[in-house]
Amino acid sequence: MTKTAAAQKTAISPRRDEDFPEWYQQVVRAAELAEPSDVRGCMVIRPWGYGIWENIQHQLDAMFRATGHRNAYFPLFIPLSYFAKEAEHVEGFAKECAVVTHTRLEMDAEGKLKPGSPLNEPLVIRPTSETIIGASYAKWVQSYRDLPILLNQWANIVRWEMRPRLFLRTAEFLWQEGHTVHETEAEAREETERMLNVYATFAQESCAIPVVRGTKSESEKFPGAVDTLSIEAMVQDRKAIQAGTSHFLGQNFAKASGIQFQNREGKQEFGWTTSWGMTTRMVGTVVMMHSDDDGLVLPPRIAPTQIMILPITPKEETRAKVLETCDALALQLRGKNFADAPIEVEVDRRDLGGGVKNWEWIKKGVPIRVEIGPRDLETNSVAVSRRDQPVKTKELMSTQEFAATASEILMSVQSNLFERAKKFQEENTRVIESKMEFYEFFTAKNANKPEIHGGFALAHWNGSREVEEQIKSDLKVTIRVIPFGESEPGKCVFTGEPSARRVVWAKSY
Amino acid sequence: MTKTAAAQKTAISPRRDEDFPEWYQQVVRAAELAEPSDVRGCMVIRPWGYGIWENIQHQLDAMFRATGHRNAYFPLFIPLSYFAKEAEHVEGFAKECAVVTHTRLEMDAEGKLKPGSPLNEPLVIRPTSETIIGASYAKWVQSYRDLPILLNQWANIVRWEMRPRLFLRTAEFLWQEGHTVHETEAEAREETERMLNVYATFAQESCAIPVVRGTKSESEKFPGAVDTLSIEAMVQDRKAIQAGTSHFLGQNFAKASGIQFQNREGKQEFGWTTSWGMTTRMVGTVVMMHSDDDGLVLPPRIAPTQIMILPITPKEETRAKVLETCDALALQLRGKNFADAPIEVEVDRRDLGGGVKNWEWIKKGVPIRVEIGPRDLETNSVAVSRRDQPVKTKELMSTQEFAATASEILMSVQSNLFERAKKFQEENTRVIESKMEFYEFFTAKNANKPEIHGGFALAHWNGSREVEEQIKSDLKVTIRVIPFGESEPGKCVFTGEPSARRVVWAKSY
Repeated sequence: MTKTAAAQKTAISPRRDEDFPEWYQQVVRAAELAEPSDVRGCMVIRPWGYGIWENIQHQLDAMFRATGHRNAYFPLFIPLSYFAKEAEHVEGFAKECAVVTHTRLEMDAEGKLKPGSPLNEPLVIRPTSETIIGASYAKWVQSYRDLPILLNQWANIVRWEMRPRLFLRTAEFLWQEGHTVHETEAEAREETERMLNVYATFAQESCAIPVVRGTKSESEKFPGAVDTLSIEAMVQDRKAIQAGTSHFLGQNFAKASGIQFQNREGKQEFGWTTSWGMTTRMVGTVVMMHSDDDGLVLPPRIAPTQIMILPITPKEETRAKVLETCDALALQLRGKNFADAPIEVEVDRRDLGGGVKNWEWIKKGVPIRVEIGPRDLETNSVAVSRRDQPVKTKELMSTQEFAATASEILMSVQSNLFERAKKFQEENTRVIESKMEFYEFFTAKNANKPEIHGGFALAHWNGSREVEEQIKSDLKVTIRVIPFGESEPGKCVFTGEPSARRVVWAKSY
Repeated sequence: MTKTAAAQKTAISPRRDEDFPEWYQQVVRAAELAEPSDVRGCMVIRPWGYGIWENIQHQLDAMFRATGHRNAYFPLFIPLSYFAKEAEHVEGFAKECAVVTHTRLEMDAEGKLKPGSPLNEPLVIRPTSETIIGASYAKWVQSYRDLPILLNQWANIVRWEMRPRLFLRTAEFLWQEGHTVHETEAEAREETERMLNVYATFAQESCAIPVVRGTKSESEKFPGAVDTLSIEAMVQDRKAIQAGTSHFLGQNFAKASGIQFQNREGKQEFGWTTSWGMTTRMVGTVVMMHSDDDGLVLPPRIAPTQIMILPITPKEETRAKVLETCDALALQLRGKNFADAPIEVEVDRRDLGGGVKNWEWIKKGVPIRVEIGPRDLETNSVAVSRRDQPVKTKELMSTQEFAATASEILMSVQSNLFERAKKFQEENTRVIESKMEFYEFFTAKNANKPEIHGGFALAHWNGSREVEEQIKSDLKVTIRVIPFGESEPGKCVFTGEPSARRVVWAKSY
């Protein structure tokens, strides 16, 4: 542990309501989740941040497996010629590509290191892998008997970013990308929806993030997709964030890569493909969703440590006994399960002041902190603090009672975070009936809130891209998602033209 | 499953003793472990191959955690200037670097896609991460209180290869790299040895690969290291393969990156660092170590599926009942543990001939195959085949007995593979006393073995690099490792000069 903000006994500065973007950066830093690297746009993910990502990985991976998917690994490099095969795709990603043009390093005349041998064909570092994976699928798929192909890969991705922000937008990020091929359009559409539902379940149950599911409008969909489905969350500044996407690619990429099969009638047909991904951005979403002015708040299911035991050892003579009691409690808790896995518990044995350690774990968002000092030994009790409650709140409990209910308390923290986020989202979602009301929702001044982001506006829309572009240019507001569900005919609030359903409008990350 | 060699009811061609390198490629292909991609030197790791790697990951990761390490993630890109800081390091890797020089793609006048904006400073794609991780450590380390730093990262690595071979040498490969900083030389040396022992334990216990531990000679060590420790295995063509390395880096990289701390005496001092890695090459080592002329043979502890149940369903009327019995057995087996984890068992329900399916799983190296057909229903029995025995050997057992002993049978396969490999290594390790004997060992003709690789030669050596170079040029034989243990003075077999101990010589991958 280094001498960072985490070692100081103070809240985060600025507060959320003073400067949300800066508060976010400070929470990430104080919790030692990640930091910028000297390589432009890239981040270093520190152990506490990576531990959250590992929990996301394990839980998502189990869900992918349970839905019949297996993992594989495809090359980092994409030949320029592959990339060029799908026109919308190349247009969508051309600005964000990093390109390898040389191998070897050589010394120039001044003894300065420089790139050596030029490659015949430059290689793009994958900004997504449809084209490189498609090349393999084209070889593997011959007959309808070879379908479906249901693979996923955990990988790093590079999309050059001009304005990077830790976890939210970085030049290199980590993700998983599922890539499937199906015999029929119906099966591929079913898969697209199935995986969106996996993401929604994961976001809500593991990350305590309520989400809205739906389809992206034409202008917001994945380059080359027929349809992009998305889950959208609302963070504490009332902006939307896309938390996972699932794409129905039709036969577009099958045609570009030549994924063809002999169908049941003996005819050659192009496969129907999907792709879907969730990224390290989810860590940033968790931060913005649950944290407070004291630092990070983590949902227990994705916290690297769920319970931190803090020995209070003011006197040398009781020190050994306190530590022994802490270790015994840790051992007891590790034998208990929370959400089908043993409780993750640590004892912070470091020789630092109790207040310093307590504040460090507050800032790191550990769901439950347990203090045990010399006086607690006599009464056989512990002081329990829940991170979803104000940081000074402590409940004195018998050790026995705490051990017996630890799993329930974790469950209560988990569901409380979800309910709180859900309530916030509901309170900041408005059914809007007129253009004036719409503009007011996203611009009304409020002395306490220098940046007004409104929230989610549910408003009818005529389906035109021109309207979207006008709203985006006026308010920086876009359609986040066209929600699933029954259609509810009405009139576009901007044009008065017919509309099949209300769509979700918001400012977004 | 696609129409590959795996679907044919035949052994691997050529046999091991006909053409070992080609046999290896055919085993990898028939087992659907991996295949070359169109991107020069890169491979596609297919689900069965990736499943082995995932098991390697999980087991190694648990061992790293148990020895106090945590995972983190550092950038893929290394600025050229970082890379240039350690002279030996840059010399060692300059020829293998892939270099990013541009971002964005643009269309040229002919509508052809080309690299767009040149970068101010080219970026090297990590061939190893000492220099980029060192930059972070330099920021994090201030005082001896910040030490040790014990981190690991799971990542992809690029080292441009002119003569790639699946798993053994590929331009992109997957690995883990541990990077640690310590207060003293003694602690760093202890860590270097501790992690080598972790690798040795893993190789022997999980991969059933007997290894020799020791130090590399000067000419074979990691560029920039003070000492490189290695575990070396002998595969079936009697060549050596390096299966994992652990480097004591002294203060070389600390000086290059500026990792300095205030020591207990209040003085500024450079940290003592180590790094250690194991790669997807381990999958190739497993293939060459245990497989036979029928295909892959997998040690149960790293097999993606440990028991494959094959329903034999010749008649429609008994089909449902056979499948039901297979499913019931699978369920029962999943409730049992092997090596502290539930047994991995699958039922191959595909509507293919029993012989085709059987041969597929033979070639994929599943440790135990279990056939259940209509007649077995009456007798309540199963036909059990172990992959470490000839493929036509079947033992008829009562279902009850098999379920009760499945874990023991797996254990027996695991230890049998290890013992067999150990015996092979011992039989092909020779104590050599003269130069003539040494040359003969690596060149003697044998009609059945077109390529003579000798094995491990234990011979005294005077410690000179000239001798190493002469032997390498004459025989393609190098010092694989200077084994740990008591010194045993003697005379160099090449020069007659004094030697402190025998070293291990071999041809190698």
